[in-house]
Amino acid sequence: MGFRMYDLIEKKRDGGVLTGPEIKWMTEEYTAGRIPDYQMSAMTMAIFFRGLNKEETLNLTMAMTTSGDTVDLSGIDGIKVDKHSTGGVGDKTSIALAPLVASVGVKVAKMSGRGLGHTGGTIDKLESFPGFNTSISMDAFLKQVNDIGIAIMGQTKDLVPADKKLYALRDVTATVDQLSLIASSIMSKKLASGADAIVLDVKCGSGAFMKDFASAKALALEMTELGRGAGRKVTAFISDMDEPLGLAVGNALEVKEAIDTLRGKGPEDFSELVMQLASAMVCFAGKAGSEEEARELLDRSIKEGRAIDKLKEFVKAQGGDERAVDDMSLLPAAKYECEVEADTDGFVSGIECAEVGNASLLLGGGRLTKEDEIDLSTGIIMKKKKGMSVKAGETLAVMYYNSEEKMEAAKARLKAAFKISGSKPEKNDIILGRI
Amino acid sequence: MGFRMYDLIEKKRDGGVLTGPEIKWMTEEYTAGRIPDYQMSAMTMAIFFRGLNKEETLNLTMAMTTSGDTVDLSGIDGIKVDKHSTGGVGDKTSIALAPLVASVGVKVAKMSGRGLGHTGGTIDKLESFPGFNTSISMDAFLKQVNDIGIAIMGQTKDLVPADKKLYALRDVTATVDQLSLIASSIMSKKLASGADAIVLDVKCGSGAFMKDFASAKALALEMTELGRGAGRKVTAFISDMDEPLGLAVGNALEVKEAIDTLRGKGPEDFSELVMQLASAMVCFAGKAGSEEEARELLDRSIKEGRAIDKLKEFVKAQGGDERAVDDMSLLPAAKYECEVEADTDGFVSGIECAEVGNASLLLGGGRLTKEDEIDLSTGIIMKKKKGMSVKAGETLAVMYYNSEEKMEAAKARLKAAFKISGSKPEKNDIILGRI
Repeated sequence: MGFRMYDLIEKKRDGGVLTGPEIKWMTEEYTAGRIPDYQMSAMTMAIFFRGLNKEETLNLTMAMTTSGDTVDLSGIDGIKVDKHSTGGVGDKTSIALAPLVASVGVKVAKMSGRGLGHTGGTIDKLESFPGFNTSISMDAFLKQVNDIGIAIMGQTKDLVPADKKLYALRDVTATVDQLSLIASSIMSKKLASGADAIVLDVKCGSGAFMKDFASAKALALEMTELGRGAGRKVTAFISDMDEPLGLAVGNALEVKEAIDTLRGKGPEDFSELVMQLASAMVCFAGKAGSEEEARELLDRSIKEGRAIDKLKEFVKAQGGDERAVDDMSLLPAAKYECEVEADTDGFVSGIECAEVGNASLLLGGGRLTKEDEIDLSTGIIMKKKKGMSVKAGETLAVMYYNSEEKMEAAKARLKAAFKISGSKPEKNDIILGRI
Repeated sequence: MGFRMYDLIEKKRDGGVLTGPEIKWMTEEYTAGRIPDYQMSAMTMAIFFRGLNKEETLNLTMAMTTSGDTVDLSGIDGIKVDKHSTGGVGDKTSIALAPLVASVGVKVAKMSGRGLGHTGGTIDKLESFPGFNTSISMDAFLKQVNDIGIAIMGQTKDLVPADKKLYALRDVTATVDQLSLIASSIMSKKLASGADAIVLDVKCGSGAFMKDFASAKALALEMTELGRGAGRKVTAFISDMDEPLGLAVGNALEVKEAIDTLRGKGPEDFSELVMQLASAMVCFAGKAGSEEEARELLDRSIKEGRAIDKLKEFVKAQGGDERAVDDMSLLPAAKYECEVEADTDGFVSGIECAEVGNASLLLGGGRLTKEDEIDLSTGIIMKKKKGMSVKAGETLAVMYYNSEEKMEAAKARLKAAFKISGSKPEKNDIILGRI
């Protein structure tokens, strides 16, 4: 296959369509370091302007999927279902969702990541349980799924190296924001992780990568098509991220909210999102004939305590202190707290996700570089959400922190995040759409 | 000036206008190696799609001009005039033009390059004179111009390093073909070379970078505006390159044609081009009040032998054997020659420049990499040009060569270059337009 990268750049620049062999060659050679970054960044910028058609996008996704190790889940009986969220503020969904579906017999073999930005990722959050270990071997991972139906591990180093390298390049060359490249980046990781079926949660709103419904829907469509093109079952939810999800923002605080939710005492928006995603997963796994039936199963599991028991079993299996599920004082807790109060009467007309995230980051709950240490104990609990009435002096949110240093800055940002208006605004449903 | 390259890429990607300080910072930082190639290639691809406006193009040109050494010609009396051609097949213009205008008192202080491709550059061609040396010091260069009115040296290593680096990057990322980038690349080198006035020869046709009149005119306009924006006098000719210029292609062969032309015995198209460019240069230098008057001066200089004498003086001053001007057997000559004959009767309706160039390259007259050695003696003499009638068996061109190895391949290409048709085609004027 004697392609020249120059020719491929020129072809795409001029609006041509790259063939399957061209895309496969380009992806493999780039991953192997035989195509230099400066040619690939010219290519991604050309793609930014010219786009990729459906076939090119699928070819790129498949080439990235097979660029490194792929996970073989065939040793686990039954239909394996994975879930992916495009991310937002207060998104602790996996921590409640995974034990919940496992408690009704769905096999959960999930790879997760750490987070960059306002809070940690699922892996970071799970480490709120003292001793919890996600650096487990593939064998131990598979065995645990067979034994107790659930395991979550950190992504292996050589999963989708093409995407790692390409994403890092796009990140510094202003070529992240391209639908086909976003979709192929996400889906290649999901495909390589080996699940038979995938439930996608595409966030939409000021706190999400996709700001409006049209672009969220476009991404959801693109990803579901890619997944189906690769022979997997896929469904996508478009969910609201115009305000933080649930009430808790910050690692251990979010774990507590997930525990509450598995006891049936979670915030309404978050609980509803978890139930809908879970119902889709249960159906994909063949454990229920319809999503209504699935929902009944899940409700019962929560009521009868099987959901919370599965969480304990899961935490214990991965070396964590499962007593923390019942005694949440065993989870990391911050030394200080401080209330943020409303200045005027009115209604909360909006909560700026980015500012809430930045406040949480300032309190130490996130990281800006891979090397930064996360403080799992800090964060924010929202006392008011969109549509609620407030009086001057009433608490909008509580901050939990260990150092005074950046507290005032965080407080100012958190306060500015709350928009108060005279009239009651319309509140979005948590689920905005479904593909 | 705390700019971030990411922000500048994003700005240009989204159709924004880069400010003067942004462009200057980007050019300096890139030249210094503090902006990586992969960011600059994303920028050039974004520029490919979004373009640069006139002010951005001028700012880029000025930033590149001052990115390294600039030549100070203030030690030479009078108005210094430079000339630049965008290049084509058989373009030996400078070799005739420079002594010709010097012979009527125009100061010629010219920097030239070596060539990549079908033939050498002016520097290579001049080396056909045994002993000719263009690696002279700046002091010797300036002294020679003051003494005899003409000197040509190789480009100093640190002239416009920003363009060298940027062009090399564009060359491997499919971002050469952008008008503002082409114009700024050419003009930054001309501006750094220090002339007060510049005559541009923009080639147009199948053998030129600009294939059609509209794009040649656009480039000519862009370059004249840049030159004027930088405070120089500039005029541009658009000249025909739909067939090779003159009759000779190949280094020593072209030198011979230039010598003939300085004696008034050159091919019609080439002689006319030289006279028109020379007239403009003479006017810019203030040696004539109009181009008609300049042309009379130049005609007389040729007739009275002053033009050819200036060539001898110039060759001698730079260490070359000036006897070769009168006795052309002292120039490099190939061992063998071979005629290419027409198969059918008709008219030459076109001569494919690229194929003539490739034939010359195969005979050893050009180089593909900087390290390749050029054979100065080889090349092609056209016996027929566009519009001329031919009979089957008549000679179309003669090839001069030293090795049989690639001769047959060259012959096939040269023959294929000649298009013969039944009806007499229209012949282009050598000068197609003027800015």
